[in-house]
Amino acid sequence: MIIVMNSTATEGQIADIVERLSRDGVRVQRLDAERVALAATGARPDDALEAMPGVAAVLPDAGATPMVATPQRDHAGRTDPGDMARTDGAGSGHGDRESTAGFQVGEHRIGGGTFFCAAGPCSVEDPDTMHRIAGAVAAAGAVALRAGAYKPRSSPYSFQGMGEDGLAVAHAAAEAHGLLLVSEVLDATQIPIAARYVDILQVGARNMFNTTLLRELGRTHRPVLLKRGLAATIDEWLSAAEYIVSAGNPRVILCERGIRTFETATRNTLDLGALPVVRQRSHLPVLVDPSHAAGKRAYVRSMSRAAVAAGADGLLIEVHVDPDAATSDAAQTITPHALGRILQDARAIRNALDALDNGGR
Amino acid sequence: MIIVMNSTATEGQIADIVERLSRDGVRVQRLDAERVALAATGARPDDALEAMPGVAAVLPDAGATPMVATPQRDHAGRTDPGDMARTDGAGSGHGDRESTAGFQVGEHRIGGGTFFCAAGPCSVEDPDTMHRIAGAVAAAGAVALRAGAYKPRSSPYSFQGMGEDGLAVAHAAAEAHGLLLVSEVLDATQIPIAARYVDILQVGARNMFNTTLLRELGRTHRPVLLKRGLAATIDEWLSAAEYIVSAGNPRVILCERGIRTFETATRNTLDLGALPVVRQRSHLPVLVDPSHAAGKRAYVRSMSRAAVAAGADGLLIEVHVDPDAATSDAAQTITPHALGRILQDARAIRNALDALDNGGR
Amino acid sequence: MIIVMNSTATEGQIADIVERLSRDGVRVQRLDAERVALAATGARPDDALEAMPGVAAVLPDAGATPMVATPQRDHAGRTDPGDMARTDGAGSGHGDRESTAGFQVGEHRIGGGTFFCAAGPCSVEDPDTMHRIAGAVAAAGAVALRAGAYKPRSSPYSFQGMGEDGLAVAHAAAEAHGLLLVSEVLDATQIPIAARYVDILQVGARNMFNTTLLRELGRTHRPVLLKRGLAATIDEWLSAAEYIVSAGNPRVILCERGIRTFETATRNTLDLGALPVVRQRSHLPVLVDPSHAAGKRAYVRSMSRAAVAAGADGLLIEVHVDPDAATSDAAQTITPHALGRILQDARAIRNALDALDNGGR
Amino acid sequence: MIIVMNSTATEGQIADIVERLSRDGVRVQRLDAERVALAATGARPDDALEAMPGVAAVLPDAGATPMVATPQRDHAGRTDPGDMARTDGAGSGHGDRESTAGFQVGEHRIGGGTFFCAAGPCSVEDPDTMHRIAGAVAAAGAVALRAGAYKPRSSPYSFQGMGEDGLAVAHAAAEAHGLLLVSEVLDATQIPIAARYVDILQVGARNMFNTTLLRELGRTHRPVLLKRGLAATIDEWLSAAEYIVSAGNPRVILCERGIRTFETATRNTLDLGALPVVRQRSHLPVLVDPSHAAGKRAYVRSMSRAAVAAGADGLLIEVHVDPDAATSDAAQTITPHALGRILQDARAIRNALDALDNGGR
Repeated sequence: MIIVMNSTATEGQIADIVERLSRDGVRVQRLDAERVALAATGARPDDALEAMPGVAAVLPDAGATPMVATPQRDHAGRTDPGDMARTDGAGSGHGDRESTAGFQVGEHRIGGGTFFCAAGPCSVEDPDTMHRIAGAVAAAGAVALRAGAYKPRSSPYSFQGMGEDGLAVAHAAAEAHGLLLVSEVLDATQIPIAARYVDILQVGARNMFNTTLLRELGRTHRPVLLKRGLAATIDEWLSAAEYIVSAGNPRVILCERGIRTFETATRNTLDLGALPVVRQRSHLPVLVDPSHAAGKRAYVRSMSRAAVAAGADGLLIEVHVDPDAATSDAAQTITPHALGRILQDARAIRNALDALDNGGR
Repeated sequence: MIIVMNSTATEGQIADIVERLSRDGVRVQRLDAERVALAATGARPDDALEAMPGVAAVLPDAGATPMVATPQRDHAGRTDPGDMARTDGAGSGHGDRESTAGFQVGEHRIGGGTFFCAAGPCSVEDPDTMHRIAGAVAAAGAVALRAGAYKPRSSPYSFQGMGEDGLAVAHAAAEAHGLLLVSEVLDATQIPIAARYVDILQVGARNMFNTTLLRELGRTHRPVLLKRGLAATIDEWLSAAEYIVSAGNPRVILCERGIRTFETATRNTLDLGALPVVRQRSHLPVLVDPSHAAGKRAYVRSMSRAAVAAGADGLLIEVHVDPDAATSDAAQTITPHALGRILQDARAIRNALDALDNGGR
Repeated sequence: MIIVMNSTATEGQIADIVERLSRDGVRVQRLDAERVALAATGARPDDALEAMPGVAAVLPDAGATPMVATPQRDHAGRTDPGDMARTDGAGSGHGDRESTAGFQVGEHRIGGGTFFCAAGPCSVEDPDTMHRIAGAVAAAGAVALRAGAYKPRSSPYSFQGMGEDGLAVAHAAAEAHGLLLVSEVLDATQIPIAARYVDILQVGARNMFNTTLLRELGRTHRPVLLKRGLAATIDEWLSAAEYIVSAGNPRVILCERGIRTFETATRNTLDLGALPVVRQRSHLPVLVDPSHAAGKRAYVRSMSRAAVAAGADGLLIEVHVDPDAATSDAAQTITPHALGRILQDARAIRNALDALDNGGR
Repeated sequence: MIIVMNSTATEGQIADIVERLSRDGVRVQRLDAERVALAATGARPDDALEAMPGVAAVLPDAGATPMVATPQRDHAGRTDPGDMARTDGAGSGHGDRESTAGFQVGEHRIGGGTFFCAAGPCSVEDPDTMHRIAGAVAAAGAVALRAGAYKPRSSPYSFQGMGEDGLAVAHAAAEAHGLLLVSEVLDATQIPIAARYVDILQVGARNMFNTTLLRELGRTHRPVLLKRGLAATIDEWLSAAEYIVSAGNPRVILCERGIRTFETATRNTLDLGALPVVRQRSHLPVLVDPSHAAGKRAYVRSMSRAAVAAGADGLLIEVHVDPDAATSDAAQTITPHALGRILQDARAIRNALDALDNGGR
């Protein structure tokens, strides 16, 4: 059982509940978040508990994700998220783009009907190359630069990234071209360093289950881009988001990047069926990373189009001015020119579907 | 090694090659197809062999699928399929729709830039219901009726379908509304019966590896809709198509319907990344079945949109006038109204992308 | 709902039940088996139905596998199968070997505490090689020869087997050395041919969902070795067995051969956890095929040992007198000498565990 | 390319190599380990480099795991690891137990032919329960107590473990009964705390890709038990071990605990085929955790027997004096009595196979 407290709940109210439950021998664990939540192992909800002062909600299921769940009603009031569950299957197929208000990152909005694109090299490169890439992706229509300074490599002998030096290089390049910077952190010690340079902190697929990192990211004020784990179910992915949000950081951006299956023609299997599932279960914006799913540049455009049509709130794409010279992931990296065409595609698909959705359907 | 003969190769030319190889102790197997092909186990291509009269091509790899492979050059000459492999990743992301000429089924074209839709109930129902469904899906824009008369059920105690009676009912309903009929066959004995009623013979996911069935379908003159197996790689799927084509039937339609993975939120994991891969390796048209992938009707529209944008040549969707009353697969069956909206979406997406592709990219 | 009739049920009794259910508008399907079973779609069990003459059991769930399920009580009375479900987890870990009586195939028993081994080449080879292999595997302790005459190959250009000629060769070799013959059939037309030569008809992993083939095998009097499908759940595998048994053939031997996963170091992932699950749910004997799971001969011995210890009723192993010269599957084929060592291992493990099980545990 | 230096290599020698490579524009990264290794991105091995003073080995492949790889020759000289690769497949099927010398942890040896068993509850419980469990598993034959104080839970609202208090309780219970203590750490900050109480630090499946944690564990002097990730290939698992060993800690114990597949009858799919693969590629000892693979206590004994026969160096099993009352993982937890029977099984299987291996095979 989870007891989520009101944001105005007093320490006295919290203590009262802990005491009441402890009296019955129930183990209570307090969760460190903006809103206090109490996990009561082995106890069941009851009306009296729900009625206690300061209690916002009492949830029976420890697997629940109350803070990332879709709200009953949209703030803008334009779309009824329940639409998707309509008996006739005619729910809004565009993935209920407007059902979430989204949130602001700098001057940009993520979610809430806006389309987001972060593009750039797998790893930070030298300053000159970074500037050229940043300029080119900005010209192509990206609003953020992505570039890795801390790389989670399978082998200890692979290049592990440039660290803080790389962040500084990437930051300068992004700033010069009016781009946000997205970059990955591998552990809690890197958060304060990265927060000096990075606008959106990324959790990689290999760290999606790293609950220590998730919790620490919940204590920052930077938005977090949370990639789905290689073998994570959608429920586990939303629970990982709940770790961040319940620790106090509501700005989580989900990112589908393919799961691991038996198929080897693509690097991973892009699970676009996850998009309508996430829409039903959460109000968080969802991006798609077609580059890591494809593994080969020839497949990136087709998979990007599919992601946009499935209702993605944006794309995360590996781009380099000279793809074959990229330090890592060269095979799946595309040119700024190819990115431009993908973003043209995205606009065309979204405009076409918006016209339908707003017209007489 | 495989030796593919010219379609005009004489028996004498074939015998000469077999003799030459047999002299060297090589085991030669003749493949029964419109074009003769000889599989020579353990032998390697050589120039002299390639130069023998009647030889069209000598292929080193027994895993090759020469007859389903993408031709070097498009007949219409409009699109260069190699485009997708361009260094910059700016290959045509719409999946090279025009790279295949497609083929004719009755008055309809499948592939070659045309969009195809087969819709209807999982199992054939009573004549009245079938007529109402056929009328409704025709009105919504489908060009074919899908309905199963022979059902491949996991349990011997589940309803196994209405058999020939069901085919007659479905045929009457389709004909009355100017629709083609798509229906599944489970074994070779059903082919002559089904061929009396059905325009497109379907091979289900559970039979994709049934090489006897594939070969027999290669001897019919009906087009074959070949679903991808639950755990089949793309290469194995194309090899299954090669069984049909090499036996003499060039009209094979591929259909992606989701693969089996660890994720249970959807019934299967729709692998849209397979579409650009198939485009690269084959000229055959590819449909997508979002219904079996989703397993839940709320997800069908979003997954249909994604499939169209990824470049699918059409959709195969489970539709019923009263979805909750469907004999089987009720949970994933949508209404004709929902189908109409999906086909509107499809037109909008395709028009938008066609405009881009034909304009100044 | 499934109504399983007594084996002595009269046609009149069956007609009475069909009539009663049809009166209520229930669709009833009669299953062609030694015991009549009636599948009543949409109906629910009730006491009156259960009390009708001729009824053996009324089962609520269409997914049930009543005929392959573990009997409540063992005929020999020695072991309580419920043992495995004991609260303390101290159930008989050897997989309840004695909980099934097994059945007779010629002079050999399969299941019921006996250990079975079929060994031989992937494909039938020439008569001399087959005789040498048969002699060698018999000397090593195998009781059956395995050899494929009809091969389910991914590519139509791969060698498809020697057909009936191969069966004759394999039969002669097996007979000369007192071995049973196990060989695969791909479709119903091959059954009468194969039945002239083969003692145990094999269904390959790629045909496990081929319900037409399963049903036809249920009408023969030959035992059937049923391999688990590449992506088949244990429940689907048991349902495939139920197809055969419900059609009249109780002698089904299950064979675990590895499932398809993301791991590529082995050809498939051997799922030995399936053995205790099958023990709990079925009385059918279970073999293990370590060769197709391993894909490399260096791993076959270790995986064979594990299979025996997990409680397998026997092994199916690819063996050749000159492994590197085998026509197919050479990489996973071992020598007769290696087979001899594996069978020594099997005896040692089984003796050690039997001593424990019979002693003071 | 990786250059592994001799343990006696001087800083001057290292600098010479870095300089030579840098001169050619090669990026060189120094790895912080007992033995210095240099990763040279984009460079290829050459004879002159190999001949430079201080160089132990030059490896072409960045995916290589030189420090966890099987040595060419066993120290004890008893077994030839190459045996497994023998042409006839008769390599030692017991998984070459003696091919690794193993290492010492306190008074116990892990690997090198010794059998290890860690048993205990999923989570640390109250002191009294812990003492009773520790006493019972010691009596049953375990040499280590396993108990989690930091729990990596999917949900932030699930019980997260007792933290340091739990470690103190577990330590006291283990010490009182002469047991080693195995317990999991989730991040680097927990290492110094855990090192005060714990003999073997565990990395859970969800943290196998957490390279920061792996590297920090490489800097401790505590042995590390490294579980295989949910979707990790064997190569990625060995690379994770290489992170620890290359950072200075050679005492890594691998632990197979099941991978994630489509099958749901067991919690995970135990991949025992991984054992002979690991034996071929590494000298590190390998344990098996049948509890997390099974997910149900009825399957633990059969899977334990299989693991021992496959050549596991030991078992990690969830045990509780009152399994149904366990705080977490109750369904897969067995009694001390059941553990006792499993360890009897293990001795019996190992004795039987040892007798064969040492006798006249």
